[in-house]
Amino acid sequence: MIEVKLLEDRIREEGETVGNDIVKVDMFLNHRIDIELLCEIGKEFRKLFVKDNINKILTIEASGIGIACVAAQYFNVPVVFAKKGVNRNVGTDLYTGEVFSFTKNQKTQIGISKKYLTADDRVLIIDDFIANGEAVKGLIGICKQAGAEVSGIGICVEKGFQPGGKELRSMGYHVESLAVIESINDGVIKFGSYT
Amino acid sequence: MIEVKLLEDRIREEGETVGNDIVKVDMFLNHRIDIELLCEIGKEFRKLFVKDNINKILTIEASGIGIACVAAQYFNVPVVFAKKGVNRNVGTDLYTGEVFSFTKNQKTQIGISKKYLTADDRVLIIDDFIANGEAVKGLIGICKQAGAEVSGIGICVEKGFQPGGKELRSMGYHVESLAVIESINDGVIKFGSYT
Repeated sequence: MIEVKLLEDRIREEGETVGNDIVKVDMFLNHRIDIELLCEIGKEFRKLFVKDNINKILTIEASGIGIACVAAQYFNVPVVFAKKGVNRNVGTDLYTGEVFSFTKNQKTQIGISKKYLTADDRVLIIDDFIANGEAVKGLIGICKQAGAEVSGIGICVEKGFQPGGKELRSMGYHVESLAVIESINDGVIKFGSYT
Repeated sequence: MIEVKLLEDRIREEGETVGNDIVKVDMFLNHRIDIELLCEIGKEFRKLFVKDNINKILTIEASGIGIACVAAQYFNVPVVFAKKGVNRNVGTDLYTGEVFSFTKNQKTQIGISKKYLTADDRVLIIDDFIANGEAVKGLIGICKQAGAEVSGIGICVEKGFQPGGKELRSMGYHVESLAVIESINDGVIKFGSYT
């Protein structure tokens, strides 16, 4: 359970709801990026995963990259990001996975060069949102191929009314979300927690 | 002309050439990301553009995002990144452009929400590579639509044997590249400068 409610406050003040299942945070998190907020998020992840002995941060393009890079400074570890649509200058020696996007209603291939993820890695997966958990599961699958350990999963915004976070916790993963949205009703966002 | 040759050294030591026109730097810059190096790059950009009164950093997904976010900390300004393939949760009220990729031999639509770029902005465009300059020109086009000023263009690696950097300088833009590759011959990279 986190103490700093900075992200929650920011979502309450600026987040834009679309229907009862979408909150847009593109004004500070994933289109226009507030760097001070990103630093606070990075510090918070550091606190939450300080005991997990992380040596690599893994994310997926595009929205995860900024969050992961700023956070990585507080862990002093490199970032590796999975590319979407393989064969794009990534080479051929890849760990790959398939991620289904409910938003786009399509599957996307993701890939990471085998050179950059190994059995020595203790990985922190970072992403902006978790809903059904498809992206994170895709990254976990890639870690398994590499023999890398998934030591933690750090999420900015968890949609608590969708099953991704719960499922991953029940599988034993250390998942921490900085803001958990329990419900959206007529533009009113209700926050909850996962503890 | 920059003093720190950190990036040049790194390319010399670890960059992998492909034929006589490609250098892969995905081991430290655009797939696996060395965060200490990114911090040094950010500080260097700050020195190079300190007089340009920047209030926003603009980049394009995906490789530019990490570089831009880490650099933004030294400028204390927000980052906005252009999304590739519009209509993906970006909304409809967009400035758009078309970027031709020689590597992929295809055009990509890029877009930025009109909310996040305005006539008050003095923009630093940041990207990992410049070759023909297509991506940067796409971002300049978007700045023009918004009435924003392009105050600087900061590039990590310039392919000096391709015309993008030269063209933009001759158009009067303040372009700074931290490493300029003059030629690649049988795996030997020769560095140059643009001054």
